[in-house]
Amino acid sequence: MCRWAAYIGQAIFLDEIISRPGHSLIHQSHCATQCHTAINADGFGLAWYGERAEPGLYRDVMPAWSDPNLKSLTAQVKSGLFLAHVRASTGTATSRNNCHPFAVGRWSFMHNGQIGGYEAFRRDAEMLIPDTYYPHRKGATDSEALFLVALGEGLEADPKAAMERACAKMEALSRLRGAGPHLRLTCALSDGTRLYAVRYASDNQAPSLYHRWSDSRRGRAVVSEPLETEEGGWEELAQNAFYTFEGKKVTSVPFAPGALAQAAA
Amino acid sequence: MCRWAAYIGQAIFLDEIISRPGHSLIHQSHCATQCHTAINADGFGLAWYGERAEPGLYRDVMPAWSDPNLKSLTAQVKSGLFLAHVRASTGTATSRNNCHPFAVGRWSFMHNGQIGGYEAFRRDAEMLIPDTYYPHRKGATDSEALFLVALGEGLEADPKAAMERACAKMEALSRLRGAGPHLRLTCALSDGTRLYAVRYASDNQAPSLYHRWSDSRRGRAVVSEPLETEEGGWEELAQNAFYTFEGKKVTSVPFAPGALAQAAA
Amino acid sequence: MCRWAAYIGQAIFLDEIISRPGHSLIHQSHCATQCHTAINADGFGLAWYGERAEPGLYRDVMPAWSDPNLKSLTAQVKSGLFLAHVRASTGTATSRNNCHPFAVGRWSFMHNGQIGGYEAFRRDAEMLIPDTYYPHRKGATDSEALFLVALGEGLEADPKAAMERACAKMEALSRLRGAGPHLRLTCALSDGTRLYAVRYASDNQAPSLYHRWSDSRRGRAVVSEPLETEEGGWEELAQNAFYTFEGKKVTSVPFAPGALAQAAA
Amino acid sequence: MCRWAAYIGQAIFLDEIISRPGHSLIHQSHCATQCHTAINADGFGLAWYGERAEPGLYRDVMPAWSDPNLKSLTAQVKSGLFLAHVRASTGTATSRNNCHPFAVGRWSFMHNGQIGGYEAFRRDAEMLIPDTYYPHRKGATDSEALFLVALGEGLEADPKAAMERACAKMEALSRLRGAGPHLRLTCALSDGTRLYAVRYASDNQAPSLYHRWSDSRRGRAVVSEPLETEEGGWEELAQNAFYTFEGKKVTSVPFAPGALAQAAA
Repeated sequence: MCRWAAYIGQAIFLDEIISRPGHSLIHQSHCATQCHTAINADGFGLAWYGERAEPGLYRDVMPAWSDPNLKSLTAQVKSGLFLAHVRASTGTATSRNNCHPFAVGRWSFMHNGQIGGYEAFRRDAEMLIPDTYYPHRKGATDSEALFLVALGEGLEADPKAAMERACAKMEALSRLRGAGPHLRLTCALSDGTRLYAVRYASDNQAPSLYHRWSDSRRGRAVVSEPLETEEGGWEELAQNAFYTFEGKKVTSVPFAPGALAQAAA
Repeated sequence: MCRWAAYIGQAIFLDEIISRPGHSLIHQSHCATQCHTAINADGFGLAWYGERAEPGLYRDVMPAWSDPNLKSLTAQVKSGLFLAHVRASTGTATSRNNCHPFAVGRWSFMHNGQIGGYEAFRRDAEMLIPDTYYPHRKGATDSEALFLVALGEGLEADPKAAMERACAKMEALSRLRGAGPHLRLTCALSDGTRLYAVRYASDNQAPSLYHRWSDSRRGRAVVSEPLETEEGGWEELAQNAFYTFEGKKVTSVPFAPGALAQAAA
Repeated sequence: MCRWAAYIGQAIFLDEIISRPGHSLIHQSHCATQCHTAINADGFGLAWYGERAEPGLYRDVMPAWSDPNLKSLTAQVKSGLFLAHVRASTGTATSRNNCHPFAVGRWSFMHNGQIGGYEAFRRDAEMLIPDTYYPHRKGATDSEALFLVALGEGLEADPKAAMERACAKMEALSRLRGAGPHLRLTCALSDGTRLYAVRYASDNQAPSLYHRWSDSRRGRAVVSEPLETEEGGWEELAQNAFYTFEGKKVTSVPFAPGALAQAAA
Repeated sequence: MCRWAAYIGQAIFLDEIISRPGHSLIHQSHCATQCHTAINADGFGLAWYGERAEPGLYRDVMPAWSDPNLKSLTAQVKSGLFLAHVRASTGTATSRNNCHPFAVGRWSFMHNGQIGGYEAFRRDAEMLIPDTYYPHRKGATDSEALFLVALGEGLEADPKAAMERACAKMEALSRLRGAGPHLRLTCALSDGTRLYAVRYASDNQAPSLYHRWSDSRRGRAVVSEPLETEEGGWEELAQNAFYTFEGKKVTSVPFAPGALAQAAA
């Protein structure tokens, strides 16, 4: 399990989401309350958009709470769109390349969840990554593979459809050669303009995910657990849904890779 | 390019090969004389055999010369069979999982050289790794892939034939989809009982490789560059040959993946 | 707070104490039960004695549970006398030089506890380190300073008296310029022949410390928390006592720096 | 020896100084031409000023050329005043706290050079650091000590005088208890508004230091070695001088700690 937080809106210092709130992402890295593992100390990462098309990417295997570089970075850098993640490994080694978010071109992606029994069909999963994107395969996580498959499925043209097809392929492999629960997913992705998030599980037990608009910041946070425990306004994202966040707007459409997966399997 | 050193014989402190000699492996990590890159500071690693069947494995991305843990380890640990490597990356990221040696079960492997144009056919190369060994694919190097393919080809039963077939497959892919020089190889591998080394290049320009028996140590060093520049007795390993070192014995047989590769391409 | 484990007896693989037991040191690094912090993930270290007079020293800032190098090392290395520690920082930065154990010559030392209000008199504390040992001051912890002061007080000649005087000096400084609780201490130290341990607190609330002889291993473990929760034979070390472990023998004498401290303050 | 680069002017991406030029700081980290060590791979660091009074600080022990985090950071972050440094250790361990620049409050500082025989009088040197600044002593370098002593001497009120007095004290200690050359210094420091640089050596052999105004960037670079070898306009900073850079202005005054040092010794 992992925890993550994303933001879209007026540019703010990264630490306003990552470390300052009472139950910030850093706090969740050692005291998460809504997942199996209270501790998410197997690495952290952040991707933030600024003047360039491609995001900046900062990842390390240290526990988030003890990295002075992260502290400094988040206190200094401002961004109107960023993704941040703290990792609890589901098996793969601790290595910078296995930390989220992943970035290819102007796309960034992070994931909390699992693809059931992945180790048994890992090779088949990686074979789904087309040649064009294979050079971007740097680690060994299921999450990075899912992202690269989604890119191959046309993330650029239609993010929702591409993610759906990618998830369907992974879920099909899991049903065929893996183990249940086949796919549990909360993920966030961005092209630098919009922020997307998905909440889905083949067994309807998707990890937690919330969002909240802040008038003072003029921006929206999308997070695994509410950043302030005593604060209202946190809405849960619906399961089986693909969300698009742009400016203050929120839209969602049904997300159903399961049907595709069962057809394929 | 990289540099490496292996040893088989009476148990000695690791530092007798790794750091103490005048042109030790550590010295070669910042002052190599017989390869393109004087500096090999993109990581180091060592695999050593002791009481267990599997070797110990210690790898890190720090330059070898500045790691106090390595210094301590090599001063304390004794072994009669070990492999050590300092890395200069040919493209792949610096990460512990991309450092040599690699170890699977009781086998260990390290490599200096390149598979020409690997990035262009990386996916096909990884597809050669059988399911049984795929879970051991942790990084993204061509070296690790070559090792896992060799294991799949039956390293256990016939090391020379397996390495030859694995190299042939890689060379064939390079001829088909990569770039010249197609395969340059000096590698060392061990099952904990014997030490094997190969020196081969598709263009006959294999990296340097020497060996020398030491009566005082009662053991043999096999190294990229002689450990002492003023010392005699260093013999160059022949190109296109597969060597077996056991006790004091040295045997070699021709190694010719090229023929197999050209047949396959 | 931190957790530690030491061993003296017949040579065993380090992992028999560090990772294999049900409530091993590694387990205590993320699930400690008898201290404030369940998580001790701000670094780990081990010092082990072998053929050389000086111990080997391996320390890193990674959480202990996720370091494959540590896993390998402890599975391969055997020793009849070693110290291992997992750290929860009481303020000082995470850095290899701030990890325990510390080693100078053939002496090694590790500590769990605190010197109250240390940051307020840190300079005075460091000024207690004599010139001879000052070059060994590499980090900024109170523990390292305490060790160097003890060396200066004649650890070589009389470990108990030296530790007592060193603790008295630190406690006096804390009473003068620091804050309560002035000194809480469980520490272990060794010269490669004997293992020593101290349990003391100026307010009689010393951290937990136990020991147990194992007939099967023919050795004794001295640990912050019992290695197996269902296992009998674990004896608590008395507070205000300095223990000497040699072979199977255990002796203890009163340890009373407080009197010295109050005289000095 | 080390190499460093600083910049003051219109905000630019950090990589325009740190990595993009032909002989950028990153290039100098493995191919320096005007110092003893071609390789400066014992760590790097950067301090940059943005919206906050305190600078951001990013330091790591990895060779600069292989850190993807640094690459990302410098491609994304813009600043009108920053310091960057690559380190070749003169003895002290590789550790983030021993990397330059150092930062206290809004001040940042980096150094290339040495204080002769420092290890012999390190304790006396640290004793010069006043209580107020002692908590900021995190590592063990002579550079960090020099900076803290300078802060204590009133860097805030009169940077030139404070640096001069601090250097005089260190030089005096070296003359008394150290070894020649007693003090070689090129350093840069900033309070977030102005950039200061010093070039001085007790034996008149100060390390190299240049500066150049760029009309296209509308900013000035101050560097150990010119960023482009074929580029004109690089002026050498005079020895025994304290420079102030503000906007486009450059002023310098004599810097003579030696007289003070010899008086004190």
